[in-house]
Amino acid sequence: MTLSIGQYLLDKLHSIGVRHIYGLPGDYVLKFNKLIEEHPIKFINCTIENSAGYMADAEARLLGLGVACITYGVGIGIANSIAQAFVESSPVIIISGAAGTDEFSKCHYLHHLINKTQQDQADITQLEIFKQITGAQAVLNDPTTAENEINRVIHYCLENKKPVYIEIPRNFIHMPLDTCKKIEFVKKESENSSLKEALDEVVSILQKSRQPVIWAGHEILRHRLSSDLLKFAEEYNIPIASSLLGKTAISEHHPLFLGLYQGGMSRPEVQQFFEKCDCHIILGTVLSDVETGIFSAKIKENIIFANTLEGIRIHHHTYPNILFQDFIKDLKTIKLQKKFSNQFHSHSSRKLPFISRNAKITVTRLFECLQYYLKKDNIVVTDIGDALFGSEDLILDENSFLASAYFETLGFGAPGAIAAQLAMPGKRVIGIVGDGGFQMTAMELATAVRYKLDPVIIVLNNHGYGTERPLLEGSYNDIQDWNYTKIPEVVGGGVGIEVRTEMEFEKVLQEALSTRGHFFLIEAELDKLDFSPTMKRFSALVHKNAKK
Amino acid sequence: MTLSIGQYLLDKLHSIGVRHIYGLPGDYVLKFNKLIEEHPIKFINCTIENSAGYMADAEARLLGLGVACITYGVGIGIANSIAQAFVESSPVIIISGAAGTDEFSKCHYLHHLINKTQQDQADITQLEIFKQITGAQAVLNDPTTAENEINRVIHYCLENKKPVYIEIPRNFIHMPLDTCKKIEFVKKESENSSLKEALDEVVSILQKSRQPVIWAGHEILRHRLSSDLLKFAEEYNIPIASSLLGKTAISEHHPLFLGLYQGGMSRPEVQQFFEKCDCHIILGTVLSDVETGIFSAKIKENIIFANTLEGIRIHHHTYPNILFQDFIKDLKTIKLQKKFSNQFHSHSSRKLPFISRNAKITVTRLFECLQYYLKKDNIVVTDIGDALFGSEDLILDENSFLASAYFETLGFGAPGAIAAQLAMPGKRVIGIVGDGGFQMTAMELATAVRYKLDPVIIVLNNHGYGTERPLLEGSYNDIQDWNYTKIPEVVGGGVGIEVRTEMEFEKVLQEALSTRGHFFLIEAELDKLDFSPTMKRFSALVHKNAKK
Repeated sequence: MTLSIGQYLLDKLHSIGVRHIYGLPGDYVLKFNKLIEEHPIKFINCTIENSAGYMADAEARLLGLGVACITYGVGIGIANSIAQAFVESSPVIIISGAAGTDEFSKCHYLHHLINKTQQDQADITQLEIFKQITGAQAVLNDPTTAENEINRVIHYCLENKKPVYIEIPRNFIHMPLDTCKKIEFVKKESENSSLKEALDEVVSILQKSRQPVIWAGHEILRHRLSSDLLKFAEEYNIPIASSLLGKTAISEHHPLFLGLYQGGMSRPEVQQFFEKCDCHIILGTVLSDVETGIFSAKIKENIIFANTLEGIRIHHHTYPNILFQDFIKDLKTIKLQKKFSNQFHSHSSRKLPFISRNAKITVTRLFECLQYYLKKDNIVVTDIGDALFGSEDLILDENSFLASAYFETLGFGAPGAIAAQLAMPGKRVIGIVGDGGFQMTAMELATAVRYKLDPVIIVLNNHGYGTERPLLEGSYNDIQDWNYTKIPEVVGGGVGIEVRTEMEFEKVLQEALSTRGHFFLIEAELDKLDFSPTMKRFSALVHKNAKK
Repeated sequence: MTLSIGQYLLDKLHSIGVRHIYGLPGDYVLKFNKLIEEHPIKFINCTIENSAGYMADAEARLLGLGVACITYGVGIGIANSIAQAFVESSPVIIISGAAGTDEFSKCHYLHHLINKTQQDQADITQLEIFKQITGAQAVLNDPTTAENEINRVIHYCLENKKPVYIEIPRNFIHMPLDTCKKIEFVKKESENSSLKEALDEVVSILQKSRQPVIWAGHEILRHRLSSDLLKFAEEYNIPIASSLLGKTAISEHHPLFLGLYQGGMSRPEVQQFFEKCDCHIILGTVLSDVETGIFSAKIKENIIFANTLEGIRIHHHTYPNILFQDFIKDLKTIKLQKKFSNQFHSHSSRKLPFISRNAKITVTRLFECLQYYLKKDNIVVTDIGDALFGSEDLILDENSFLASAYFETLGFGAPGAIAAQLAMPGKRVIGIVGDGGFQMTAMELATAVRYKLDPVIIVLNNHGYGTERPLLEGSYNDIQDWNYTKIPEVVGGGVGIEVRTEMEFEKVLQEALSTRGHFFLIEAELDKLDFSPTMKRFSALVHKNAKK
């Protein structure tokens, strides 16, 4: 029996491991919603499109692929979260319904349509918007090409770890596939002789190096290269720092893990060790303002650099015909006649006992306490601001940290934590959010109740946009104070508790971590101007940079 | 003293009547936020960008111009509400911060930037997105053109009633203007002989007509033409129906107001009268699916048609050189040797006493009760679904009804009502929202508390996406039930009361309308499948259309 376009798309997604689709229904996509309902893939109803995008993104980071489904036009509310997925290379597939081509041919003035482009065949406005924030796009308006088009964009998404966009006019959802000629999408390959030459160079650099260090970024995670990288590092005893977005690129419990390097925003001992190394091996990071600690990172001339955006670079020359993935995978195959003897305190050795005092809770002490209670099965999802900066030094397992650390969008924390909990039911997710970011997407907790998901959400309530206060203070940085702990009563589930002291926080955190079955919202009452050490270094660097 | 670019922009906005800017701060726009703080224009902090867009849109519809201010990249969350403003011709100015051109020239990898387009001079990704949903755009990166650019896009916005986009890289906010040559933006004008010919035709058509009827749309409101239209109608005693999006194009208390015509979705007596008329004068509406009652509207061949999108059309010929506004304004100048004697019940004559019963509240009875208590100073802002359809027959004053009646986006209701209350402090705003739409933007009520705004919000809780149930039912149409009346406790102000019977609703509504100083949230508990008569006609028409 010939499959319909909608059915084929769902079966294809299921065959590559998709188990959830996050989204909202709408009339142009309703027939597809019905197909999902009758399919093993589960539809997760979200409260609003932008949160659905965040949730698909979180699942993509953890499981390698995430899917969001929206209706046409009004669904462009998802644009912000998809821009995040684009910038931070998260493989998300966006499926959008659209007006039927039969309807459009009769009248162009249809609800949800924008028609800015005034095309005759279809409204392409939404497609043009998604072209700006996705890596590939397909409009499934032809049964003879639909199968190839679906495979093309999914292939692109999985190969490049960038969001892709699929639009189905509603009269094509049930239309049977009519494939003419199946196109095979072949994996790109590196040129062998280029790869060999580059690896030879790596050998010669490392032979001469006194102390190299690896700086691992998010692309190690996205391309699932952590164990390859670790084999290389272990073989020669090379310490690994991670970037902020690349946090947990390897397990932070590993003795070779140095800590998070972010230039002048790093912990001083990490910064000192990193900057004294005579060879920097920078793998899978994009040297953005935030990743480099507002450009304060000090990189040696003696550099081995690789990412998907700029390719492979050694010293000052590049290798255009090597794929990032191949380079990382093959690093472990080099033959080096030495092993480095490092002198540094591994990140995990910093784990100290926490003795709570009956004193007002501060950002620093909150994270010290959290650190103490973290277990290997915890996943931390943060919003930006001190939720992110304060989390930098937590000790976490591989791929157990999600944050908008480059794009820096507010609102990812709560929906991201909920989706992470759904994606990884055996683990326990801790979401950390500032009050400003939480107000944007807090109500997605209703979705946690509906699907019985039980993340622990810690709200750092510093009464406003705390990150901005040191930059330029004004009343625009204040927000309306909410009674966050009443949210469970609104959404019909979960528990909310406010804490003001270290002892209260410790007690509630222990309870939250040992209770499963419903979400826990812990509101920590903080001073307006209480900042983590990283945040203080960040503000100082921003001001220093502004004076340049 | 020479003004800075930021200062000039603010002064210009103030000089044309802007008193509020809705938005959220962010580091790329922070210096502009500071300028607003020091300016008579008030910044209204919203919880999330999409709501800020809705609020600016509501103010634009009521006061003729609305302004939203966002930061770069993450601010594209506003796209959905701006698409609504574009489709429904609401004059909104979006101001966005951006990375400094000095920063970008040093490094393209900056937080909040998308860089999909990989340009050398600046990240133009966000600009490309806004090109799809705004009518004109300006990037203020040159002090010699900034003044002209500001004036160009504001002129465009006011003349065309379409949203426009202004982007300021942050290093240009404080830069002094350096104007070379000031450009005057002249108003477009109609060709006099064209206009005369068209009006002569109108005269000749009306001379022969037995019974004409005007069908007035939203462009009458946007271009402030209500009184011009009314003078024409009164002179010859021509009844006026409105479209759905054009509801309150004239005061619905006026004896010439027939009611809302929407093809087969209309009240039967309005439909009957309208379709028996032998001349249809269709002014300022776009004949979309929803406006035409899913294409069930029956338009006579004997037609006088005018809107800004398609121009002026009489029978089957068009007048390309006449402006919509001029045509409407000059209709009142024609000389006709007759007055029509209509036989219809004016819309306002339908106002009946309401006697509440101790029976479960229904959509129909809720709107009957609301109708009874409405006063001339009420403004109604609705979300879509039965919040919109149920409101169609309310009797309201001129320009006192706001809804996403063409674009049909969910979530406009609550933020729209809050902004309407701010824009029109002397009136009392009633927001009517379904539970699905309310969940998207309910928490903007925090903004009502912060700025002491007191709309009455009626939540029609029918436990899901009610409009979709008759189209294609499934679990995706269910949503998590909230205890909506607990929201005031979360946001720290307002009162929430649940009602289940007619008597309860009447009592609480009376109380809400007679209490000022805080918002009132009335949650009406409805049956899942309780629909207004209009909604029933809508569903039937959709199904009928699908079978074609």
